[in-house]
Amino acid sequence: MTNTNVQIAMLTTESDARRRVANALAVERMLSADPYLVDVAPARDVVPGMTDATILTSGAPLRWEEYTGGQRRSVLNAAVYEGLADSVQDAETAIVAGQITVRSTQQHRCIGSVAGIYTASMPVLVVEERTFGGTSFCNLYEGQSRYKLNYGAYDDEVRAGLRWLEDVMGPVLSDALKLTGPIPLKPMMARALRLGDELHSRNTAGTLLFERELTSAFAELRGTSNADAVAQVVQFFRDNDYTFLRMSMAAAKAMADAAHGVAASSLVTGMVINCQSFAIRLSGMGDQWFTGAHPQLDGRFFDDFGPGDAEWIGGESCFTEVVGLGGFAQAAAPALQAYQGGSYERMRDNNCAMYEIAVAEHPDFLIPALDFRGSPVGIDVVEVLRRGRTPMIDGGLAGRGGGQIGAGLLIPDLEAFQSAFDSYCARYDCTSDSAASSDSTGDQEGPR
Amino acid sequence: MTNTNVQIAMLTTESDARRRVANALAVERMLSADPYLVDVAPARDVVPGMTDATILTSGAPLRWEEYTGGQRRSVLNAAVYEGLADSVQDAETAIVAGQITVRSTQQHRCIGSVAGIYTASMPVLVVEERTFGGTSFCNLYEGQSRYKLNYGAYDDEVRAGLRWLEDVMGPVLSDALKLTGPIPLKPMMARALRLGDELHSRNTAGTLLFERELTSAFAELRGTSNADAVAQVVQFFRDNDYTFLRMSMAAAKAMADAAHGVAASSLVTGMVINCQSFAIRLSGMGDQWFTGAHPQLDGRFFDDFGPGDAEWIGGESCFTEVVGLGGFAQAAAPALQAYQGGSYERMRDNNCAMYEIAVAEHPDFLIPALDFRGSPVGIDVVEVLRRGRTPMIDGGLAGRGGGQIGAGLLIPDLEAFQSAFDSYCARYDCTSDSAASSDSTGDQEGPR
Repeated sequence: MTNTNVQIAMLTTESDARRRVANALAVERMLSADPYLVDVAPARDVVPGMTDATILTSGAPLRWEEYTGGQRRSVLNAAVYEGLADSVQDAETAIVAGQITVRSTQQHRCIGSVAGIYTASMPVLVVEERTFGGTSFCNLYEGQSRYKLNYGAYDDEVRAGLRWLEDVMGPVLSDALKLTGPIPLKPMMARALRLGDELHSRNTAGTLLFERELTSAFAELRGTSNADAVAQVVQFFRDNDYTFLRMSMAAAKAMADAAHGVAASSLVTGMVINCQSFAIRLSGMGDQWFTGAHPQLDGRFFDDFGPGDAEWIGGESCFTEVVGLGGFAQAAAPALQAYQGGSYERMRDNNCAMYEIAVAEHPDFLIPALDFRGSPVGIDVVEVLRRGRTPMIDGGLAGRGGGQIGAGLLIPDLEAFQSAFDSYCARYDCTSDSAASSDSTGDQEGPR
Repeated sequence: MTNTNVQIAMLTTESDARRRVANALAVERMLSADPYLVDVAPARDVVPGMTDATILTSGAPLRWEEYTGGQRRSVLNAAVYEGLADSVQDAETAIVAGQITVRSTQQHRCIGSVAGIYTASMPVLVVEERTFGGTSFCNLYEGQSRYKLNYGAYDDEVRAGLRWLEDVMGPVLSDALKLTGPIPLKPMMARALRLGDELHSRNTAGTLLFERELTSAFAELRGTSNADAVAQVVQFFRDNDYTFLRMSMAAAKAMADAAHGVAASSLVTGMVINCQSFAIRLSGMGDQWFTGAHPQLDGRFFDDFGPGDAEWIGGESCFTEVVGLGGFAQAAAPALQAYQGGSYERMRDNNCAMYEIAVAEHPDFLIPALDFRGSPVGIDVVEVLRRGRTPMIDGGLAGRGGGQIGAGLLIPDLEAFQSAFDSYCARYDCTSDSAASSDSTGDQEGPR
């Protein structure tokens, strides 16, 4: 079904052994990471290096002039939203003048959904990883409206929604967490997989389980002054099955970060998108992002939209795939078809194909419909190239005109993986013939 | 795969056409039934014909001397629990003397889980069927302890649990329902199928969804005097994923009852078990129960228990199968394997086999893993005999020593179905050769 062993010659026996040992250590760190949600607080108060004039956005870092289209628009609108500029034009001027700093979420332990915009006053989930130590952050879901800042849209409704997150959702969650104490996310995520989520494009069960975790706290808070705020938050949970995605993303970032930084490991510890590229990082290759073309889309479009209407404006929720969720667990989520198309048989086949490029089966993220087999986890860039198969990513699709226009599978090509592997070989002296490895991928079946 | 058309000769063309029309009407009533949970109240206050000295129990009605083993013990213990007798011996005397009346749940629009014991003071769910009118009842889940009155056990802990349902759970649910208003159960059930329930042996999602429906009411009630009671109920929901089974059962009873009483319909509108037999009723055959041997067990046993430890002490939760849930929707519930054994492939095959004996596909109960095909619904006794295939029922298993000892598939043989069909033919003048029909079943593959 795939050409195996074609590229085994890429690595010497010695370097191959070293890589395998390193990957085993890296994936073990990923699997034993234990993220807890400990607080919800404004980004300025908790995100390291975040100033009042910082704006974060998804993807490998770019220079300001490289941000284009919807992602650039989102950053500019964020400056207006935050009160750093009176208009989009003023925001442009202030950024160029260095009065506003635009940086990547990944430079601040944050993870961004689609454009992934963070401003200083936005509330963020604070997730502590308790096995190795470390903190990650994700801001809050804007709600089910098609138009959101993170999908390149900005108007009075978008602004009001963001303000509500600051004024109501953030404080209520923070108060509730003071009553519940830190909430371990991994057991809840494992359970959500038994209830039909894959925790990237389907989060209905996670949202229900998270809400249950807070039910007693909500009840207690209702007795206090902010009864109306609590009622609004309860209603938001009911209306927004996607709410838990942000908890899942923050947890995925924590797990992936735990696996990052193991010398000689070729494990993929991050996948991100910005307006220019898809990019990955490897555990053993420091903070470098290796870029390639944007993924192919295999999507279901809302209304009359089509592939030509889609625009890449960023996205880092594919960290969920990095830790064995999303496309790597979609056999757990048959109902996802209704959202992103495809048949269940195809979803299951896609999911099973991911075992080919993964170094482990997750001990906690089990897939009931695969008779409780652990999800494939830990993407080895070498296996990706050897099989000619790239990770399949569940994702939402942004439109050129702003807003979400569909959902589906995102399938990167080999470019970013090849680039990462070439640098890996150069750094770790694999005595690989990288030209040969590029050639040989041509003999293999392409990514699906 | 099965011998088709072998028994088509059983029915004349005319009677076959009449039956099909009648079944179409009956199943249409089943599918358009719309059950709402309207209240929770003590049985004596709402169940028609329930007196302070009435005890109800599962299954086709029996004379007192026919109740044996765990089911008999449960009835006697219920009399002691209710204060109708000081001891099991006194209860025997009182029943024989006619001071305590023992009747079938089915004679009172109730539905019983396992032994299905109702006493006058037990709180019951009151479910109104709003399309055709009608009310059904189910009492409350005793909790996850293996030992329960409905599983033939009775001790201080069982008694305390039942008392808690009366004193805390019942009143809190009743108060909450006054705040929420009537709760439509069918949309919640349809949604639970998308979240991995089949609503007989897996009710985790239903329980979460039901709890969410009450979250605001719980919060409001916490501000009142009974804060501690509400906290206990919230904890019960967290601890007991099976809670929603009783809502599902009451709804199934309402849907099945809506389809009952259509002249010439051979649709199965009820399946029940008591200590003596498995029994079914047909829509067009009035209140008569047609009995056969107890089902075969294909189960997973807890701890060191085995098939020889199982005892039939009653059960009517197989009404869920009657309305297209449970074994008829188990492809929706891959995680159920962990509880009752089997592989997911087998569960899916079992589920699909039920289409052979069903007259419709449910318009609301959709199975995501079957690409949102509606569950098979409306068991036609003629198709059961024609295919030699009986309904597959998900169920819990009671032990001789009291308590639950396992869970699995219950597979009745053809006896009850043959008996029902013979009577149907006699009443509706099908000019069928019933001896021939008995013979021909011997040529077919048996129920799996």
